[in-house]
Amino acid sequence: MLLIADNLTVTNKTVQKAVVEKNPEPIRELVENCVAAGAQAIDINPGPLGRNQEGAMTFLVDVVQGVTNLPVLIDTPNPCAIEAALRCCKRTAIINGFSLEPAKLEAILPLAKKYSVDIIGYLLRPDGHVPADAQERLQIAFSVYEALCKAGIDRERLIIDPIVVPMTWQNGSFQNREVLSVIRQLPDLLAFPVRTIVGLSNLTATEGTRRKKLLIENAYLCMLAEAGLSMVLMNVLHKESVKAAKACHSLLDSGIFVWEEI
Amino acid sequence: MLLIADNLTVTNKTVQKAVVEKNPEPIRELVENCVAAGAQAIDINPGPLGRNQEGAMTFLVDVVQGVTNLPVLIDTPNPCAIEAALRCCKRTAIINGFSLEPAKLEAILPLAKKYSVDIIGYLLRPDGHVPADAQERLQIAFSVYEALCKAGIDRERLIIDPIVVPMTWQNGSFQNREVLSVIRQLPDLLAFPVRTIVGLSNLTATEGTRRKKLLIENAYLCMLAEAGLSMVLMNVLHKESVKAAKACHSLLDSGIFVWEEI
Repeated sequence: MLLIADNLTVTNKTVQKAVVEKNPEPIRELVENCVAAGAQAIDINPGPLGRNQEGAMTFLVDVVQGVTNLPVLIDTPNPCAIEAALRCCKRTAIINGFSLEPAKLEAILPLAKKYSVDIIGYLLRPDGHVPADAQERLQIAFSVYEALCKAGIDRERLIIDPIVVPMTWQNGSFQNREVLSVIRQLPDLLAFPVRTIVGLSNLTATEGTRRKKLLIENAYLCMLAEAGLSMVLMNVLHKESVKAAKACHSLLDSGIFVWEEI
Repeated sequence: MLLIADNLTVTNKTVQKAVVEKNPEPIRELVENCVAAGAQAIDINPGPLGRNQEGAMTFLVDVVQGVTNLPVLIDTPNPCAIEAALRCCKRTAIINGFSLEPAKLEAILPLAKKYSVDIIGYLLRPDGHVPADAQERLQIAFSVYEALCKAGIDRERLIIDPIVVPMTWQNGSFQNREVLSVIRQLPDLLAFPVRTIVGLSNLTATEGTRRKKLLIENAYLCMLAEAGLSMVLMNVLHKESVKAAKACHSLLDSGIFVWEEI
């Protein structure tokens, strides 16, 4: 399970200020900290920054690439910003992402073919809403897979996000157990070892103390790892979460004497 | 998932000294601390205390029952000590436990019928060795179930322990992933919602720092909970483990708005 830093987002005030002022230093420092903490890829989320999405995105990609060779996830629904990022990207890039929403199928999915990069497919309804259960997620996964193949993209490029929901939702625990079931079933459904990703902080997006959020995130992280999740988008500066992920690797590693390596 | 304190064991020097001196105070204090920490049952393990196993066991049962009404697990391979404990037990008791070893089938299993109590069945080979994988564990589970039925015991009395092994074993991580698989498959195999239990500290029985042991135990605890484990035998004085178990309950609870209850 690869650990992907979700820290580089404009919901972080420091990042937002640095982007507005085009000041690379705070971004550099944050990325260095993420790399030191164990990040294996960096998600870049410039958020809704008004008209200059492309400028914000290329600025961030440039700064990140100045610090690390790790893969970057281009995390925006804006196709122009995605393309701008892909053009200036010298390392491995992953588009984050597309769904069955018609605008995304038309404008975002083809970019994965044009730039030969991996792309994340969200298991959302065509209207952008979250599916009701595992069954509906699996149906959508099949449609996402078909759309990808129809766009002429190698199926190995697909990474599926089954959509974790906030635990504060009325049926939050049900939905998130369904996500675990979907992660387990997807390789059989699509008949190849499709990769999966989730955004861990979605679980605790709305409320709760930091301590409570961490407890629930870390417990769910272990369940996700055991279900076979390929990548997790998370705050890699939460040391306890990174340690929990490493403990999972040790528990799930097929090698011998893995206990020694924690 | 019920939390069962494994703290009352003679491998704890304080307990050992108190048993030898027949001094109830240290035992009382330990049990009170376990109850306060969230224990939902107390395992009583008098260990290999020489000739007076029965005396040690009845002493411990009496002291525990003076402190709490919680169920007790009678954790000894000595049939005389088990029977002595069952005779003086005023609360719910669970025999911990029997296996396919002929001596245990003959001398321990019938006690569950005689005293109408639940009994734990270990998934061990008739020679006491740990099975090779999930498949062998499931075969043994069926034999354990058959032995129980043949002894005239209601199948609802059975609790199965699939045997967690130390991570330091050469194939430790494989074996412990097989345990998760067995927990998931048992209800289908036996065609009823059979309960399961594991000893969490077996995972880290041999070596490692306390911090490392806790990390690995807590991660595995979350995986066990998600696999559907009914009861976990653990050190309930490890606050982080109890919190992790509560976070799991919140994540796995079918109720609505469970987030509020952590």
